[in-house]
Amino acid sequence: MEASGAIIREHGSDAVRSIFAVHRHSPVIDALARTPRILDRARQILGSEVYIHQSRINAMPGMVGTGFGWHSDFETWHAEDGLPAPRTVSLSIALTDNFAFNGGLMLMPGAHRVFVPCVGQTPDDNFRESLQKQKVGVPSDDAVTELGLEYGIEQFTGPAGHALFFDSNSMHASSNNITPYSRANVFLVFNSVENAPAAPYGAAAPRPAHIADRDTTPLTPIHNSEFA
Amino acid sequence: MEASGAIIREHGSDAVRSIFAVHRHSPVIDALARTPRILDRARQILGSEVYIHQSRINAMPGMVGTGFGWHSDFETWHAEDGLPAPRTVSLSIALTDNFAFNGGLMLMPGAHRVFVPCVGQTPDDNFRESLQKQKVGVPSDDAVTELGLEYGIEQFTGPAGHALFFDSNSMHASSNNITPYSRANVFLVFNSVENAPAAPYGAAAPRPAHIADRDTTPLTPIHNSEFA
Repeated sequence: MEASGAIIREHGSDAVRSIFAVHRHSPVIDALARTPRILDRARQILGSEVYIHQSRINAMPGMVGTGFGWHSDFETWHAEDGLPAPRTVSLSIALTDNFAFNGGLMLMPGAHRVFVPCVGQTPDDNFRESLQKQKVGVPSDDAVTELGLEYGIEQFTGPAGHALFFDSNSMHASSNNITPYSRANVFLVFNSVENAPAAPYGAAAPRPAHIADRDTTPLTPIHNSEFA
Repeated sequence: MEASGAIIREHGSDAVRSIFAVHRHSPVIDALARTPRILDRARQILGSEVYIHQSRINAMPGMVGTGFGWHSDFETWHAEDGLPAPRTVSLSIALTDNFAFNGGLMLMPGAHRVFVPCVGQTPDDNFRESLQKQKVGVPSDDAVTELGLEYGIEQFTGPAGHALFFDSNSMHASSNNITPYSRANVFLVFNSVENAPAAPYGAAAPRPAHIADRDTTPLTPIHNSEFA
Protein backbone atom coordinates (compact mmCIF):
# COMPACT_ATOMS: atom_id res chain seq x y z
CA MET A 1 0.00 0.00 0.00
CA GLU A 2 2.89 2.34 0.69
CA ALA A 3 3.87 2.44 -2.98
CA SER A 4 0.31 3.31 -4.00
CA GLY A 5 0.43 6.47 -1.92
CA ALA A 6 -2.48 5.23 0.19
CA ILE A 7 -0.52 5.73 3.41
CA ILE A 8 0.23 9.23 4.67
CA ARG A 9 2.68 9.73 7.52
CA GLU A 10 2.87 12.45 10.15
CA HIS A 11 4.95 15.52 9.35
CA GLY A 12 8.34 14.99 10.98
CA SER A 13 7.60 11.43 12.09
CA ASP A 14 7.22 7.92 10.69
CA ALA A 15 3.91 7.52 12.49
CA VAL A 16 0.97 6.70 10.21
CA ARG A 17 -1.45 9.62 9.83
CA SER A 18 -3.93 8.32 7.25
CA ILE A 19 -4.64 5.22 5.17
CA PHE A 20 -6.94 5.71 2.17
CA ALA A 21 -9.31 3.44 0.24
CA VAL A 22 -9.74 1.11 3.16
CA HIS A 23 -13.11 -0.10 1.83
CA ARG A 24 -11.26 -1.35 -1.26
CA HIS A 25 -8.50 -3.07 0.68
CA SER A 26 -10.45 -4.47 3.63
CA PRO A 27 -13.46 -6.81 3.25
CA VAL A 28 -14.34 -5.97 6.86
CA ILE A 29 -14.65 -2.26 6.12
CA ASP A 30 -16.49 -2.95 2.87
CA ALA A 31 -19.02 -4.99 4.86
CA LEU A 32 -19.21 -2.25 7.48
CA ALA A 33 -20.12 0.38 4.88
CA ARG A 34 -22.75 -1.89 3.36
CA THR A 35 -24.45 -3.04 6.53
CA PRO A 36 -28.03 -1.67 6.45
CA ARG A 37 -27.60 -0.01 9.86
CA ILE A 38 -25.11 2.32 8.20
CA LEU A 39 -25.95 2.26 4.51
CA ASP A 40 -29.67 2.97 5.00
CA ARG A 41 -28.87 6.03 7.12
CA ALA A 42 -26.58 7.40 4.44
CA ARG A 43 -29.27 6.78 1.79
CA GLN A 44 -31.86 8.47 3.98
CA ILE A 45 -29.70 11.53 4.61
CA LEU A 46 -28.75 11.95 0.95
CA GLY A 47 -32.16 10.96 -0.45
CA SER A 48 -30.85 8.57 -3.09
CA GLU A 49 -28.66 5.58 -3.72
CA VAL A 50 -25.09 6.22 -2.56
CA TYR A 51 -21.53 5.13 -3.23
CA ILE A 52 -18.27 5.73 -1.39
CA HIS A 53 -16.42 8.78 -2.61
CA GLN A 54 -13.56 8.29 -0.15
CA SER A 55 -12.70 6.07 2.78
CA ARG A 56 -9.81 6.41 5.14
CA ILE A 57 -8.52 5.64 8.59
CA ASN A 58 -7.16 8.70 10.34
CA ALA A 59 -4.73 7.58 13.00
CA MET A 60 -3.95 10.42 15.34
CA PRO A 61 -0.91 8.84 16.93
CA GLY A 62 -0.26 9.48 20.61
CA MET A 63 2.45 12.02 21.52
CA VAL A 64 3.13 13.09 17.92
CA GLY A 65 -0.29 13.67 16.30
CA THR A 66 -0.22 17.09 14.68
CA GLY A 67 -3.97 17.50 14.16
CA PHE A 68 -5.95 18.95 11.28
CA GLY A 69 -6.57 22.66 10.77
CA TRP A 70 -10.06 24.07 10.18
CA HIS A 71 -11.51 23.16 6.82
CA SER A 72 -14.63 22.05 5.01
CA ASP A 73 -14.14 18.78 3.12
CA PHE A 74 -16.52 19.94 0.39
CA GLU A 75 -14.12 22.72 -0.62
CA THR A 76 -11.56 20.10 -1.71
CA TRP A 77 -14.07 17.58 -3.01
CA HIS A 78 -15.58 20.28 -5.25
CA ALA A 79 -12.38 22.00 -6.39
CA GLU A 80 -10.10 18.97 -6.76
CA ASP A 81 -12.51 16.03 -7.19
CA GLY A 82 -15.35 17.67 -9.13
CA LEU A 83 -18.30 16.90 -6.85
CA PRO A 84 -20.96 19.35 -8.08
CA ALA A 85 -22.82 19.91 -4.80
CA PRO A 86 -22.41 19.18 -1.08
CA ARG A 87 -24.68 16.16 -1.30
CA THR A 88 -22.16 14.09 0.54
CA VAL A 89 -21.96 12.93 4.13
CA SER A 90 -19.10 11.56 6.23
CA LEU A 91 -19.40 8.89 8.87
CA SER A 92 -16.67 8.78 11.50
CA ILE A 93 -16.50 5.61 13.58
CA ALA A 94 -14.21 5.54 16.60
CA LEU A 95 -11.78 2.62 16.50
CA THR A 96 -10.25 3.74 19.79
CA ASP A 97 -11.74 5.85 22.56
CA ASN A 98 -12.12 9.45 21.40
CA PHE A 99 -11.45 11.83 24.28
CA ALA A 100 -11.68 15.59 24.25
CA PHE A 101 -7.93 15.70 24.75
CA ASN A 102 -6.49 13.32 22.17
CA GLY A 103 -7.33 15.18 19.00
CA GLY A 104 -11.09 14.57 19.18
CA LEU A 105 -12.93 16.01 16.17
CA MET A 106 -14.15 19.59 16.68
CA LEU A 107 -17.18 20.81 14.74
CA MET A 108 -19.17 24.05 14.55
CA PRO A 109 -22.76 22.81 14.74
CA GLY A 110 -24.94 24.51 12.09
CA ALA A 111 -22.03 26.10 10.26
CA HIS A 112 -22.39 23.58 7.42
CA ARG A 113 -25.15 25.87 6.11
CA VAL A 114 -22.56 28.58 5.44
CA PHE A 115 -20.24 28.37 2.46
CA VAL A 116 -16.87 29.93 3.24
CA PRO A 117 -14.93 30.91 0.11
CA CYS A 118 -11.28 30.00 0.39
CA VAL A 119 -8.39 31.98 -0.98
CA GLY A 120 -5.74 30.85 -3.42
CA GLN A 121 -5.41 28.55 -6.40
CA THR A 122 -4.94 24.80 -6.16
CA PRO A 123 -1.37 23.82 -7.16
CA ASP A 124 -0.91 20.73 -9.34
CA ASP A 125 -0.83 17.51 -7.31
CA ASN A 126 -1.76 19.49 -4.21
CA PHE A 127 -2.89 16.29 -2.45
CA ARG A 128 0.72 15.14 -2.08
CA GLU A 129 1.24 17.89 0.47
CA SER A 130 -2.30 18.72 1.63
CA LEU A 131 -2.97 15.28 3.11
CA GLN A 132 -0.09 15.85 5.52
CA LYS A 133 -0.68 19.54 6.19
CA GLN A 134 -3.33 21.45 4.28
CA LYS A 135 -2.26 24.92 3.20
CA VAL A 136 -4.60 25.85 0.33
CA GLY A 137 -8.36 25.45 0.13
CA VAL A 138 -8.55 26.43 3.79
CA PRO A 139 -10.56 29.31 5.22
CA SER A 140 -8.92 32.47 6.55
CA ASP A 141 -8.35 32.85 10.28
CA ASP A 142 -10.90 35.69 10.22
CA ALA A 143 -13.55 33.45 8.66
CA VAL A 144 -12.88 30.66 11.18
CA THR A 145 -13.03 33.14 14.06
CA GLU A 146 -16.32 34.64 12.91
CA LEU A 147 -17.91 31.25 12.30
CA GLY A 148 -16.58 29.73 15.53
CA LEU A 149 -17.82 32.56 17.71
CA GLU A 150 -21.24 32.47 16.04
CA TYR A 151 -21.84 28.71 16.04
CA GLY A 152 -19.67 27.54 18.92
CA ILE A 153 -17.64 24.36 19.00
CA GLU A 154 -18.56 20.83 19.98
CA GLN A 155 -16.39 17.75 20.02
CA PHE A 156 -17.13 14.18 18.95
CA THR A 157 -16.10 12.08 21.93
CA GLY A 158 -17.00 8.59 23.05
CA PRO A 159 -15.70 5.07 23.45
CA ALA A 160 -14.59 2.92 20.55
CA GLY A 161 -17.60 2.06 18.40
CA HIS A 162 -19.31 5.43 18.71
CA ALA A 163 -20.06 7.11 15.40
CA LEU A 164 -20.98 10.48 13.95
CA PHE A 165 -22.42 11.51 10.59
CA PHE A 166 -21.40 15.01 9.54
CA ASP A 167 -22.14 17.09 6.46
CA SER A 168 -19.46 17.50 3.81
CA ASN A 169 -19.61 21.26 4.28
CA SER A 170 -19.08 21.08 8.06
CA MET A 171 -16.25 23.26 9.31
CA HIS A 172 -14.11 20.93 11.38
CA ALA A 173 -10.64 20.49 12.83
CA SER A 174 -8.61 18.51 15.35
CA SER A 175 -6.11 19.82 17.86
CA ASN A 176 -2.81 18.04 18.23
CA ASN A 177 -2.50 14.87 20.29
CA ILE A 178 0.29 15.09 22.85
CA THR A 179 -1.27 12.45 25.08
CA PRO A 180 -0.24 8.77 25.07
CA TYR A 181 -3.78 7.87 23.95
CA SER A 182 -3.70 7.28 20.20
CA ARG A 183 -6.93 8.08 18.42
CA ALA A 184 -7.94 6.15 15.32
CA ASN A 185 -11.18 6.58 13.41
CA VAL A 186 -12.46 5.14 10.17
CA PHE A 187 -14.15 7.63 7.85
CA LEU A 188 -16.66 6.53 5.24
CA VAL A 189 -17.67 9.30 2.86
CA PHE A 190 -20.98 8.60 1.15
CA ASN A 191 -21.88 10.57 -1.96
CA SER A 192 -25.23 10.63 -3.74
CA VAL A 193 -25.14 8.83 -7.09
CA GLU A 194 -27.00 11.90 -8.39
CA ASN A 195 -23.94 13.98 -7.46
CA ALA A 196 -21.40 12.10 -9.55
CA PRO A 197 -18.01 13.76 -9.97
CA ALA A 198 -17.47 16.03 -12.96
CA ALA A 199 -14.18 17.58 -14.04
CA PRO A 200 -12.51 19.32 -11.07
CA TYR A 201 -13.86 22.85 -10.56
CA GLY A 202 -10.52 24.25 -9.41
CA ALA A 203 -7.65 21.93 -10.32
CA ALA A 204 -5.91 20.73 -13.46
CA ALA A 205 -6.60 17.03 -12.91
CA PRO A 206 -8.68 14.88 -10.58
CA ARG A 207 -6.99 13.24 -7.61
CA PRO A 208 -6.14 9.51 -7.78
CA ALA A 209 -8.94 6.96 -7.37
CA HIS A 210 -7.71 5.83 -3.94
CA ILE A 211 -8.38 9.35 -2.65
CA ALA A 212 -11.45 10.20 -4.71
CA ASP A 213 -13.26 7.24 -6.19
CA ARG A 214 -14.98 7.92 -9.51
CA ASP A 215 -16.84 4.60 -9.64
CA THR A 216 -20.39 5.64 -8.75
CA THR A 217 -21.92 2.15 -8.73
CA PRO A 218 -24.47 2.21 -5.89
CA LEU A 219 -23.53 0.28 -2.77
CA THR A 220 -25.59 -2.83 -2.24
CA PRO A 221 -26.52 -3.88 1.29
CA ILE A 222 -25.01 -6.89 3.04
CA HIS A 223 -27.65 -8.15 5.42
CA ASN A 224 -25.84 -10.92 7.22
CA SER A 225 -22.42 -9.43 8.00
CA GLU A 226 -20.91 -9.36 11.47
CA PHE A 227 -22.14 -5.76 11.75
CA ALA A 228 -25.82 -6.45 11.01
CA MET B 1 7.39 45.21 31.39
CA GLU B 2 8.69 44.03 28.02
CA ALA B 3 12.21 45.19 28.83
CA SER B 4 12.15 43.31 32.12
CA GLY B 5 11.57 40.04 30.31
CA ALA B 6 8.28 39.54 32.14
CA ILE B 7 6.37 39.05 28.87
CA ILE B 8 6.89 35.90 26.82
CA ARG B 9 5.47 35.70 23.30
CA GLU B 10 4.32 32.69 21.29
CA HIS B 11 6.88 30.94 19.13
CA GLY B 12 6.47 32.31 15.61
CA SER B 13 3.89 34.93 16.60
CA ASP B 14 3.62 38.27 18.38
CA ALA B 15 0.80 36.93 20.52
CA VAL B 16 1.43 37.11 24.27
CA ARG B 17 2.01 33.68 25.83
CA SER B 18 2.87 34.53 29.45
CA ILE B 19 3.26 37.53 31.74
CA PHE B 20 5.22 36.95 34.95
CA ALA B 21 5.22 38.56 38.41
CA VAL B 22 1.66 39.77 38.02
CA HIS B 23 1.19 39.91 41.82
CA ARG B 24 4.03 42.44 41.91
CA HIS B 25 2.67 44.57 39.08
CA SER B 26 -1.07 44.39 39.77
CA PRO B 27 -2.66 45.42 43.09
CA VAL B 28 -5.74 43.47 42.01
CA ILE B 29 -3.84 40.21 41.72
CA ASP B 30 -1.93 40.92 44.94
CA ALA B 31 -5.29 41.30 46.70
CA LEU B 32 -6.58 38.14 45.01
CA ALA B 33 -3.66 36.08 46.35
CA ARG B 34 -4.12 37.49 49.84
CA THR B 35 -7.87 37.10 50.14
CA PRO B 36 -8.52 34.54 52.91
CA ARG B 37 -10.68 32.40 50.62
CA ILE B 38 -7.52 31.66 48.68
CA LEU B 39 -4.65 32.28 51.07
CA ASP B 40 -6.08 30.12 53.86
CA ARG B 41 -6.49 27.19 51.50
CA ALA B 42 -2.87 27.47 50.39
CA ARG B 43 -1.75 27.63 54.05
CA GLN B 44 -3.90 24.62 54.88
CA ILE B 45 -2.53 22.55 52.00
CA LEU B 46 1.10 23.41 52.73
CA GLY B 47 0.75 23.36 56.54
CA SER B 48 2.56 26.64 57.19
CA GLU B 49 2.74 30.28 56.29
CA VAL B 50 3.21 30.77 52.56
CA TYR B 51 4.61 33.26 50.07
CA ILE B 52 4.38 33.50 46.29
CA HIS B 53 7.22 31.77 44.51
CA GLN B 54 5.90 32.69 41.07
CA SER B 55 2.84 34.30 39.53
CA ARG B 56 1.92 34.51 35.91
CA ILE B 57 -0.87 34.86 33.42
CA ASN B 58 -0.76 32.22 30.72
CA ALA B 59 -2.63 33.51 27.70
CA MET B 60 -3.30 30.68 25.30
CA PRO B 61 -4.19 32.87 22.34
CA GLY B 62 -6.88 31.68 19.96
CA MET B 63 -5.78 30.19 16.61
CA VAL B 64 -2.04 30.37 17.40
CA GLY B 65 -1.62 28.95 20.93
CA THR B 66 1.08 26.30 20.78
CA GLY B 67 0.41 24.66 24.13
CA PHE B 68 2.74 23.30 26.79
CA GLY B 69 4.35 19.85 26.65
CA TRP B 70 4.19 17.43 29.57
CA HIS B 71 6.22 18.51 32.56
CA SER B 72 6.28 18.76 36.34
CA ASP B 73 6.86 22.31 37.56
CA PHE B 74 8.81 21.02 40.55
CA GLU B 75 11.56 19.71 38.28
CA THR B 76 12.39 23.27 37.21
CA TRP B 77 11.69 24.88 40.56
CA HIS B 78 14.11 22.45 42.22
CA ALA B 79 16.84 22.38 39.57
CA GLU B 80 16.82 26.03 38.51
CA ASP B 81 15.24 27.88 41.47
CA GLY B 82 16.55 25.79 44.40
CA LEU B 83 13.28 24.82 46.09
CA PRO B 84 14.33 21.91 48.32
CA ALA B 85 11.08 19.92 48.30
CA PRO B 86 7.75 19.83 46.44
CA ARG B 87 6.02 21.71 49.23
CA THR B 88 4.51 24.09 46.73
CA VAL B 89 1.07 24.34 45.22
CA SER B 90 -0.26 26.15 42.16
CA LEU B 91 -3.65 27.78 41.86
CA SER B 92 -5.00 28.29 38.36
CA ILE B 93 -7.94 30.69 38.03
CA ALA B 94 -9.77 30.89 34.72
CA LEU B 95 -9.94 34.44 33.38
CA THR B 96 -11.81 33.22 30.31
CA ASP B 97 -13.91 30.10 29.83
CA ASN B 98 -11.69 27.03 29.81
CA PHE B 99 -13.04 24.46 27.36
CA ALA B 100 -11.67 21.01 26.67
CA PHE B 101 -10.76 22.21 23.19
CA ASN B 102 -8.93 25.51 23.69
CA GLY B 103 -5.80 24.30 25.41
CA GLY B 104 -7.49 23.37 28.68
CA LEU B 105 -5.00 22.12 31.27
CA MET B 106 -4.50 18.33 31.24
CA LEU B 107 -3.42 16.55 34.40
CA MET B 108 -2.74 12.96 35.43
CA PRO B 109 -4.59 12.67 38.74
CA GLY B 110 -2.42 10.97 41.38
CA ALA B 111 0.76 11.08 39.33
CA HIS B 112 2.12 13.89 41.53
CA ARG B 113 3.15 11.12 43.95
CA VAL B 114 5.64 9.83 41.37
CA PHE B 115 8.92 11.61 40.77
CA VAL B 116 10.01 11.31 37.15
CA PRO B 117 13.74 11.90 36.67
CA CYS B 118 14.42 14.03 33.62
CA VAL B 119 17.36 13.65 31.30
CA GLY B 120 19.95 16.25 30.41
CA GLN B 121 21.76 19.17 32.01
CA THR B 122 20.29 22.65 32.38
CA PRO B 123 22.00 25.11 30.01
CA ASP B 124 22.89 28.56 31.34
CA ASP B 125 19.96 31.00 31.12
CA ASN B 126 17.70 28.12 30.05
CA PHE B 127 14.60 30.15 30.99
CA ARG B 128 15.08 32.46 28.01
CA GLU B 129 14.11 29.56 25.77
CA SER B 130 12.20 27.21 28.07
CA LEU B 131 9.40 29.67 28.81
CA GLN B 132 8.55 29.67 25.12
CA LYS B 133 9.16 25.99 24.44
CA GLN B 134 10.60 23.75 27.12
CA LYS B 135 13.21 21.30 25.84
CA VAL B 136 15.21 20.27 28.92
CA GLY B 137 13.93 19.26 32.33
CA VAL B 138 11.09 17.44 30.60
CA PRO B 139 10.25 13.75 30.97
CA SER B 140 10.87 11.23 28.21
CA ASP B 141 8.01 10.19 25.93
CA ASP B 142 8.24 6.72 27.47
CA ALA B 143 7.83 8.10 30.99
CA VAL B 144 4.83 10.23 29.95
CA THR B 145 3.24 7.27 28.18
CA GLU B 146 3.67 4.96 31.17
CA LEU B 147 2.37 7.53 33.63
CA GLY B 148 -0.53 8.62 31.40
CA LEU B 149 -1.76 5.10 30.78
CA GLU B 150 -1.54 4.29 34.51
CA TYR B 151 -3.16 7.43 35.93
CA GLY B 152 -5.35 8.59 33.05
CA ILE B 153 -5.89 12.18 32.04
CA GLU B 154 -8.40 14.76 33.24
CA GLN B 155 -8.84 18.33 32.10
CA PHE B 156 -9.52 21.49 34.07
CA THR B 157 -12.52 23.03 32.36
CA GLY B 158 -15.11 25.56 33.47
CA PRO B 159 -16.35 29.10 33.02
CA ALA B 160 -14.28 32.14 33.90
CA GLY B 161 -13.80 32.27 37.65
CA HIS B 162 -13.38 28.55 38.18
CA ALA B 163 -10.16 27.57 39.91
CA LEU B 164 -7.96 24.55 40.54
CA PHE B 165 -5.18 23.90 43.04
CA PHE B 166 -2.60 21.40 41.80
CA ASP B 167 0.57 20.01 43.32
CA SER B 168 3.94 21.29 42.11
CA ASN B 169 4.90 17.76 41.11
CA SER B 170 1.76 17.21 39.00
CA MET B 171 2.49 16.03 35.49
CA HIS B 172 0.57 18.43 33.26
CA ALA B 173 0.36 19.79 29.73
CA SER B 174 -1.84 21.71 27.33
CA SER B 175 -2.65 20.85 23.74
CA ASN B 176 -2.50 23.60 21.17
CA ASN B 177 -5.36 26.08 20.73
CA ILE B 178 -6.51 26.31 17.13
CA THR B 179 -9.98 27.55 18.09
CA PRO B 180 -11.00 31.22 18.10
CA TYR B 181 -11.58 30.96 21.87
CA SER B 182 -8.56 32.41 23.62
CA ARG B 183 -7.86 30.90 27.02
CA ALA B 184 -6.28 33.02 29.76
CA ASN B 185 -5.59 31.85 33.31
CA VAL B 186 -3.78 33.45 36.21
CA PHE B 187 -1.44 31.14 38.12
CA LEU B 188 -0.47 31.81 41.72
CA VAL B 189 2.29 29.52 43.00
CA PHE B 190 2.35 29.30 46.76
CA ASN B 191 5.44 27.94 48.48
CA SER B 192 5.84 27.06 52.15
CA VAL B 193 8.07 29.51 54.00
CA GLU B 194 9.71 26.38 55.44
CA ASN B 195 10.74 25.42 51.91
CA ALA B 196 12.73 28.58 51.12
CA PRO B 197 14.87 28.47 47.99
CA ALA B 198 18.49 27.37 48.34
CA ALA B 199 21.13 27.48 45.63
CA PRO B 200 19.81 25.84 42.44
CA TYR B 201 20.24 22.07 42.51
CA GLY B 202 20.95 21.79 38.79
CA ALA B 203 21.85 25.17 37.29
CA ALA B 204 24.69 27.66 37.50
CA ALA B 205 22.58 30.59 38.74
CA PRO B 206 19.04 31.16 39.99
CA ARG B 207 16.47 32.55 37.61
CA PRO B 208 15.49 36.23 37.84
CA ALA B 209 13.20 37.37 40.66
CA HIS B 210 10.27 38.04 38.35
CA ILE B 211 10.25 34.31 37.47
CA ALA B 212 11.29 32.88 40.84
CA ASP B 213 10.81 35.21 43.79
CA ARG B 214 13.33 34.74 46.61
CA ASP B 215 11.55 37.04 49.06
CA THR B 216 9.95 34.55 51.45
CA THR B 217 8.09 37.10 53.60
CA PRO B 218 4.78 35.39 54.51
CA LEU B 219 1.71 36.71 52.74
CA THR B 220 -0.63 38.60 55.04
CA PRO B 221 -4.38 38.33 54.49
CA ILE B 222 -6.50 41.17 53.14
CA HIS B 223 -9.94 40.71 54.64
CA ASN B 224 -11.90 43.44 52.93
CA SER B 225 -10.82 43.21 49.30
CA GLU B 226 -13.25 42.89 46.42
CA PHE B 227 -12.57 39.14 46.47
CA ALA B 228 -13.46 38.56 50.13
